[in-house]
Amino acid sequence: MKLDVKEIFEKDLIGKEVEVEGWVRNHRKQKEFGFIDFSDGTCFNHLQIVYDDKLSTFDEISKIKNGSAISAVGMVVKSEGKGQTIELKATDVKVLGDCPEDYPMQPKHHTREFLREQAYLRPRTNLFQAVFRVRSVAAYAIHKYFQDNGYVYVHTPLITANDGEGAGQMFQVTTLPIEKLKGEVDYTKDFYGKKVGLAVTGQLEGETFALAYKKIYTFGPTFRAENSNTKTHASEFWMIEPEIAFCNLEGLMDIEEDMLKYIVKYVLENCKDEMKFLDSFVEKGLIDKLNRLVNSHFTRVDHEEVIRILKEADVKWEFEPQYGEDIAKEHEKYITDYFNGPVFIKNWPKDIKAFYMKQNTDGKTVAAVDLEVPGAGELMGGSEREADYDKLVSRMKELNMSFDGLDWYVNLRKFGGCYHSGFGMGFERLLIYLTGVDNIRDVIPYPRTPLNCEY
Amino acid sequence: MKLDVKEIFEKDLIGKEVEVEGWVRNHRKQKEFGFIDFSDGTCFNHLQIVYDDKLSTFDEISKIKNGSAISAVGMVVKSEGKGQTIELKATDVKVLGDCPEDYPMQPKHHTREFLREQAYLRPRTNLFQAVFRVRSVAAYAIHKYFQDNGYVYVHTPLITANDGEGAGQMFQVTTLPIEKLKGEVDYTKDFYGKKVGLAVTGQLEGETFALAYKKIYTFGPTFRAENSNTKTHASEFWMIEPEIAFCNLEGLMDIEEDMLKYIVKYVLENCKDEMKFLDSFVEKGLIDKLNRLVNSHFTRVDHEEVIRILKEADVKWEFEPQYGEDIAKEHEKYITDYFNGPVFIKNWPKDIKAFYMKQNTDGKTVAAVDLEVPGAGELMGGSEREADYDKLVSRMKELNMSFDGLDWYVNLRKFGGCYHSGFGMGFERLLIYLTGVDNIRDVIPYPRTPLNCEY
Repeated sequence: MKLDVKEIFEKDLIGKEVEVEGWVRNHRKQKEFGFIDFSDGTCFNHLQIVYDDKLSTFDEISKIKNGSAISAVGMVVKSEGKGQTIELKATDVKVLGDCPEDYPMQPKHHTREFLREQAYLRPRTNLFQAVFRVRSVAAYAIHKYFQDNGYVYVHTPLITANDGEGAGQMFQVTTLPIEKLKGEVDYTKDFYGKKVGLAVTGQLEGETFALAYKKIYTFGPTFRAENSNTKTHASEFWMIEPEIAFCNLEGLMDIEEDMLKYIVKYVLENCKDEMKFLDSFVEKGLIDKLNRLVNSHFTRVDHEEVIRILKEADVKWEFEPQYGEDIAKEHEKYITDYFNGPVFIKNWPKDIKAFYMKQNTDGKTVAAVDLEVPGAGELMGGSEREADYDKLVSRMKELNMSFDGLDWYVNLRKFGGCYHSGFGMGFERLLIYLTGVDNIRDVIPYPRTPLNCEY
Repeated sequence: MKLDVKEIFEKDLIGKEVEVEGWVRNHRKQKEFGFIDFSDGTCFNHLQIVYDDKLSTFDEISKIKNGSAISAVGMVVKSEGKGQTIELKATDVKVLGDCPEDYPMQPKHHTREFLREQAYLRPRTNLFQAVFRVRSVAAYAIHKYFQDNGYVYVHTPLITANDGEGAGQMFQVTTLPIEKLKGEVDYTKDFYGKKVGLAVTGQLEGETFALAYKKIYTFGPTFRAENSNTKTHASEFWMIEPEIAFCNLEGLMDIEEDMLKYIVKYVLENCKDEMKFLDSFVEKGLIDKLNRLVNSHFTRVDHEEVIRILKEADVKWEFEPQYGEDIAKEHEKYITDYFNGPVFIKNWPKDIKAFYMKQNTDGKTVAAVDLEVPGAGELMGGSEREADYDKLVSRMKELNMSFDGLDWYVNLRKFGGCYHSGFGMGFERLLIYLTGVDNIRDVIPYPRTPLNCEY
């Protein structure tokens, strides 16, 4: 009976004969018996395969190298060894795919930098086996949360002629033979007949669907041609952008908090072994941190109040906090410490926020909100959207924005427009928080950063 | 109590006062009362709001225009009217967002071409409300199927330096100022320091994860710069690419069949109203067709046998069937009719299939399989992958393929390689089958086709 290792751990199979197929993570041979540390990738825990010299094939089995793919038949027995409850007493072990002595993933410590270079092999290590399963389970938790709550999943376009937030950090997409261009570029000859690039957000298109379905979310790749080589920037990353009609800023914060707690709980419950490993070897106290979040009260405070608190703090700041300005990492940390938990900072100065955010009656602020989480920094950013046609148009004019290609977005305010809100969450930022791994390159299977596009 | 319309239909609220927020799809006024056909997008069915001239605001309410966003308070009562069981007897109706008389989405028939031009408004119509909810639910069914069966969801890169299948239909991605280029292009100055494009498949990277987790799937956007203006081609579409280690061609067909039946059942159960509408107005017999699929036997037959059947058929073909060659649409249809159900056509001539497919011992065929579904044509294509290092390398040499940037893929066969299989399914093709809508432009929120990149 061929089984996944996951099933062998979950079912009561003591005394039963089973067959498994997977890989040798570590092979320790002794004179009369041997131990194969075996994984088929279906669960975090490895199965120990034990064999002894009563097998006629003992000598051949002894020669099996680390990394090899094997099939093994044997009986599930209680384990005498430490760290596992059951093991497989082999009656037959066959090599399905050999592995040379110079296999890079030998069972020893590798630096993360080395593993990044071997990105195609690193999911075979405990660390990345854990990280990328958490990634998969967290992605599913997000879908499950929104679907269970009646949201419609929308695939917004990746190739687009409008640059969304006007950030201007777009990759260009073209089929023109750029090696042969001389001066003038005739975009009518390009694939789409005009200049296009990769989307930096799906929000604007998301809003169009929110005004038809009330509750929608996007979950897809997003691109920024930003020349930043930091631990938190990648040029290709995944983002979740929910958008909710008939929802104001307070309602939005309710949703953000509810969603985040749901995802964290789901991952803690469905990745128990992975989270234990990450807690032990990557971030001590990780599970406690996440449990604290699930049980914490999320404070809601105005940006202005935050600046007042920062100014009154007995701290020598690297960056002096200022009314009307953004806050720095050191401020974020102080504020979550101050309130001893996650903090929604709301009603931001309008000049440092995007054009589509709802203008408050004070004439100075917009109904924007950033969620600051202890140990994660800013995890989500959102706002109520400007629903007033005239206010939106005049703000766009103030900012010298082109209406070209954005007429539909503005029209949403004319055709049964309504108050609505949305937020964005970078999926990798969430993963950094969930796994304790501190570099975005280590939570994306094949990360893309400036001058780096391998695989 | 603010409620979604979905909740009002699902809960027993007769005699209770509720508040709803949503949009006027159609407003019929009479002298002493009026009916508002109301939708908040949380379910397919509309709620009828009834008001009469006993309300002091009767005259204002009477003036509410189609498309407007409104809030309404009233009592849930049994409906006397046809086609609905309950309705809302309003005590108050307020306009949240007006809508002008020239609103394009008036309650009358619109052509699909017109609605494509108004893509940002079309989810407000019954047809697209149904189609895009089916899209969302089908996407979730796919995630649920794989997650429930222990697969790991992998995000493969979208920007890549290798062209996957060697199809050469890639969009180029660049940050070079192409208006200023003169002749020679120095790619070391491009964002990634080399020439890159948009991925046409995630399979190759998917395989690297299958050889660590055994069972993985991808579900993400895919790009083809193919200059085809047909009903089934888009240059940006979503694809699902599962990859399973220790799985041969027979096992792969088991998975494909199981997955497809699961998705179809899930959509039928979770989009009842949408499917009824599509069955009535888009494809008569749609639900029967899908139920037949769920209960059908999937035949498995060799490509060679298929050609023999086609040659023996008493049919005048437009394209003569040939051993060693691909089959045409007319042949696909004949074969699914012949076997009265879905057909896996397997063991294809190697010269018309991709380099990575497992070479059969006959020297002529590869262990590839296409799934032909009645009314859908080819819905999935997959294969067992060539696991033999030498055979893979010699095939790549035969095809004059470059090993540059594919060394890791080839190395997978050296480092604990094993037999493994995978398939690809175009998500939009599935949706065309599920909804009966026959144009890919009508199952993607914002379709991208040659010379068309709006929104």
